[in-house]
Amino acid sequence: MDIASLIGLILAIGLIIASIALGNAPFSAFIDIPSFLVVVGGAVAAALICFPLGSMLKSPLIALKVILNKGEDRLSLIKQIVELAETARRDGLLALESKVAEIANPLVKTGIQMAVDGSTPEVVEEVLRTEVEAIQTRHREGKSIMDQLGRFAPAYGMIGTLMGLIMMLQDMSDPSGIGAGMAVALITTLYGAIVANVFFSPFAEKLGLISRNEMVSLEIAIRGVMAIQSGESPRAIDQKLRTFLPPKQRNAE
Amino acid sequence: MDIASLIGLILAIGLIIASIALGNAPFSAFIDIPSFLVVVGGAVAAALICFPLGSMLKSPLIALKVILNKGEDRLSLIKQIVELAETARRDGLLALESKVAEIANPLVKTGIQMAVDGSTPEVVEEVLRTEVEAIQTRHREGKSIMDQLGRFAPAYGMIGTLMGLIMMLQDMSDPSGIGAGMAVALITTLYGAIVANVFFSPFAEKLGLISRNEMVSLEIAIRGVMAIQSGESPRAIDQKLRTFLPPKQRNAE
Amino acid sequence: MDIASLIGLILAIGLIIASIALGNAPFSAFIDIPSFLVVVGGAVAAALICFPLGSMLKSPLIALKVILNKGEDRLSLIKQIVELAETARRDGLLALESKVAEIANPLVKTGIQMAVDGSTPEVVEEVLRTEVEAIQTRHREGKSIMDQLGRFAPAYGMIGTLMGLIMMLQDMSDPSGIGAGMAVALITTLYGAIVANVFFSPFAEKLGLISRNEMVSLEIAIRGVMAIQSGESPRAIDQKLRTFLPPKQRNAE
Amino acid sequence: MDIASLIGLILAIGLIIASIALGNAPFSAFIDIPSFLVVVGGAVAAALICFPLGSMLKSPLIALKVILNKGEDRLSLIKQIVELAETARRDGLLALESKVAEIANPLVKTGIQMAVDGSTPEVVEEVLRTEVEAIQTRHREGKSIMDQLGRFAPAYGMIGTLMGLIMMLQDMSDPSGIGAGMAVALITTLYGAIVANVFFSPFAEKLGLISRNEMVSLEIAIRGVMAIQSGESPRAIDQKLRTFLPPKQRNAE
Amino acid sequence: MDIASLIGLILAIGLIIASIALGNAPFSAFIDIPSFLVVVGGAVAAALICFPLGSMLKSPLIALKVILNKGEDRLSLIKQIVELAETARRDGLLALESKVAEIANPLVKTGIQMAVDGSTPEVVEEVLRTEVEAIQTRHREGKSIMDQLGRFAPAYGMIGTLMGLIMMLQDMSDPSGIGAGMAVALITTLYGAIVANVFFSPFAEKLGLISRNEMVSLEIAIRGVMAIQSGESPRAIDQKLRTFLPPKQRNAE
Repeated sequence: MDIASLIGLILAIGLIIASIALGNAPFSAFIDIPSFLVVVGGAVAAALICFPLGSMLKSPLIALKVILNKGEDRLSLIKQIVELAETARRDGLLALESKVAEIANPLVKTGIQMAVDGSTPEVVEEVLRTEVEAIQTRHREGKSIMDQLGRFAPAYGMIGTLMGLIMMLQDMSDPSGIGAGMAVALITTLYGAIVANVFFSPFAEKLGLISRNEMVSLEIAIRGVMAIQSGESPRAIDQKLRTFLPPKQRNAE
Repeated sequence: MDIASLIGLILAIGLIIASIALGNAPFSAFIDIPSFLVVVGGAVAAALICFPLGSMLKSPLIALKVILNKGEDRLSLIKQIVELAETARRDGLLALESKVAEIANPLVKTGIQMAVDGSTPEVVEEVLRTEVEAIQTRHREGKSIMDQLGRFAPAYGMIGTLMGLIMMLQDMSDPSGIGAGMAVALITTLYGAIVANVFFSPFAEKLGLISRNEMVSLEIAIRGVMAIQSGESPRAIDQKLRTFLPPKQRNAE
Repeated sequence: MDIASLIGLILAIGLIIASIALGNAPFSAFIDIPSFLVVVGGAVAAALICFPLGSMLKSPLIALKVILNKGEDRLSLIKQIVELAETARRDGLLALESKVAEIANPLVKTGIQMAVDGSTPEVVEEVLRTEVEAIQTRHREGKSIMDQLGRFAPAYGMIGTLMGLIMMLQDMSDPSGIGAGMAVALITTLYGAIVANVFFSPFAEKLGLISRNEMVSLEIAIRGVMAIQSGESPRAIDQKLRTFLPPKQRNAE
Repeated sequence: MDIASLIGLILAIGLIIASIALGNAPFSAFIDIPSFLVVVGGAVAAALICFPLGSMLKSPLIALKVILNKGEDRLSLIKQIVELAETARRDGLLALESKVAEIANPLVKTGIQMAVDGSTPEVVEEVLRTEVEAIQTRHREGKSIMDQLGRFAPAYGMIGTLMGLIMMLQDMSDPSGIGAGMAVALITTLYGAIVANVFFSPFAEKLGLISRNEMVSLEIAIRGVMAIQSGESPRAIDQKLRTFLPPKQRNAE
Repeated sequence: MDIASLIGLILAIGLIIASIALGNAPFSAFIDIPSFLVVVGGAVAAALICFPLGSMLKSPLIALKVILNKGEDRLSLIKQIVELAETARRDGLLALESKVAEIANPLVKTGIQMAVDGSTPEVVEEVLRTEVEAIQTRHREGKSIMDQLGRFAPAYGMIGTLMGLIMMLQDMSDPSGIGAGMAVALITTLYGAIVANVFFSPFAEKLGLISRNEMVSLEIAIRGVMAIQSGESPRAIDQKLRTFLPPKQRNAE
């Protein structure tokens, strides 16, 4: 679980609640359900226009990934690739057939299966790279949904505030109501700023980072499969793939 | 039909109408025809300066594509390509001549026709790629029109508001009219924000997504034609092209 | 003549004039010569700092191009290239010498002249591509001047408004003058927004589009010359170059 | 130590303190701990959502690098490479084994060790380039943390100001308190602007510059190792690597 | 001398002074030394954090380059290269040794010296391209300093205005002082906008343009040296390099 994202989320929300508590206005002054609906509902509506229904329905899960993602275990991926390379060296490429079912990484699995089935290295690489591109496209869409939500939330916040101001300005017969009317008008702008800067924008950034990390693991997988198929020595493969690890981890067993 | 875009559009408009209904100002306070003309007319006028008349006249159709687009049926495209490959394998490339008329995908049609006519693979690929580039240019123009409309609408909204403010400030003899004058001035800004964030900007995003999806289908078509011409086995073509499908669809019949 | 740009320009200006006419303030309230000088003069001054004098003096002509440009007649360009290819096929490359003077397109002219003079295809292509790059650089500068004018006009509008506000705030002894002072201060912001969104920004967009279109014609010219020099058949050249035309025009005579 | 960054930091802070001292408001008017917590705490919280905990904990050290970085001593790096090249020329590549322990630059060390161990030039270069890419990724993350802090600080400043305005507008019964309430509301916006423009944004710029400089040194190291392994003459290596130095330093001993 | 930049600078400053003179406020209302120090001092301080001291000290000279730059004399550069090519053709490459001292262009000088000394064309090109890259990096830094100054000046203007507003709001006991307090607060924003839009931003644009122009001359120099070394005929070199000139200048003697 990604403890930093969870801490950040709790901290950001806590700070906002604390500063309302410290002020002299009641909490109720900051709660306005219709304003919330205009901002969040509006941002979701605009995103629904932009993206397919299937992607939008999956987006809460994608947002959860920000909190729940475990990070890549690249070392064990490299170890498994080296193990496969040893078998291939000792008993030939076809000996990997019995091991395919045990391979955890789907990209390595596909690649080894194709190599065993006799596909040429060029075809194996093309298929794996097309697959990685498809994964990247899915990641980009997930990040892009958060980006758009983070862009439309303040926009709908502004729309709500403009509507509130126009209502207030229409009826200025009671001067004592002007302040309250203006406060309500500003709440949608506040909601838009909070929703964008506590949730959507940081989530989009994090999804980008997670994706870039996963891309490195996928590159390790592809290079591993190619090296096994071209019969490189397990030791050379190990050394080459470990350059993708941070220096400290490089000599780990 | 793209149900998500339609839902999003209805939801966004519904939320705005609902929050006006919930307020204490009459609907008429939000309707001002001249303001609407300045914002939408101004954005269209600015876009007319930017783009050729033909493209502008087609832009309502392009906007409709956001709602009406059906998504790509890549699986059936791949199936048809594999079928053509089987015929070519069995009866030779020239046997495809009789089938050209039945091919639905225009890119596959052009490619197969050229192959049958004896063009070299290099020429076929060059012609198909030039065609794809031309399609991409048309798509970009469509998206670009929406982008510009979404950029000029708020700009003309601001121009309208500035004009309204100047009018109001010129005549402040009647203090009771200031609020109403300011409300009217703000309406153009509101219109600009709504028109950009409910229609033009999300439409531009969606058109970009539709185009990227279509580009994948065109890539499948080109690779399919090239593989048929180079005499690859139907099974290999099928496997290669299916990597462009999402994993779940890959083993579909 | 580019009717769309002219219509757009008239429509945008007409809408602004109409909404002033519909308001209850006199036209004179929107006219302030010093404000106009600060905005337009300031934007031009800033652009003068950015660009060479020669380019700035040519910029009104470049702006006129937005209205006067006729679009590319690619079909007749292709026809002329095919004609030259036929002569070259029938009578040899040297037979083109007598036709060089008649060639309208300067790029084709240079290329054919060089081919006739015995330059190798590599040298011809290099010279033509350097020429195209130089044209593109000139186009970019033209567009860039409009972009900068469209960026500096609102900036000088804001400078004018700030100066107006400071003047007004200095002397608030007569409250009845505050509204008028503020109105005058806002006029420079209005001018900046109008000048940028009616003229400079749409002009920059259009110049970009015109340039991209011209680049396609130049690409046709280069590919045509290269094909003639390498002795391709006129029919193949015709087919290849027509892929650059929109589908409907492709079979035109 | 980077004297310019330190001077800049002291100057920026000094100017802000001086202009408060010159004004007629007490210093206390500019100090509000809860506002400070919302802005800095909020920016840190948002960054925590975006980045892994490990990177965030290291970020104060990275910020210190802006002040403490010493610049690259490229000349002595080149001298050491040339020295290694001389040994290799005179006594063979294997003679470098005894010198590996003395090499200060980690990239040169890794490269020479691999060359001595008999790795092919292709493998050595691949390993070194992967390493450089990993360093660049770490640098980018450091810069990116500062960029995000510099983007979120003003955003949380605005959130704080909006909350302050809403509180103030809720209770306008005491007109004399409006000014003070508004002043407090504006303090978070001020803090956001100061924190972003005195610290985070310039720090991000500087980290980018430091990284680009370090990349040049890493390039020198890689090219040096490759040249030694391919047996180029020390004099040629010296001349080639010195082109990376500024002209004045090029002939230094 | 670059007359356009000088005219632009005088025009921009003149327009601002003229519109103050036309207004009814005294000049003194626009002069506030502490405000000036916060804006310009703050922008310089922030830039000092971003860039090395050496680059910052050179930046006034770089800014002068905007006014003093003379433009590139590409024609005479080409002529000198062609002359060198003629000597090399007639008397051999080594005959150029005696002419090296006379070569004005430093890049041509280095290249010819290396060619005479027997470096291979690959090495000569690598050294020259590394040099050009280093020049481009220096140019980019110069432009980047102006860009950052143009970005931080308005930011410190806003910081100053916020501080002024907070001071004013703290003490509203004397209503007649509010206007003047607000006027002073706005002056820093005005200074930030003027400094950015009259000086730094246009200067950054111009430096970019000067650099792009110089890059073309450097490309001519590199291509010329390479052509001389590979023994191309002076006439061919002349023709090839002249494609870099604008059409009108191409046939100049």
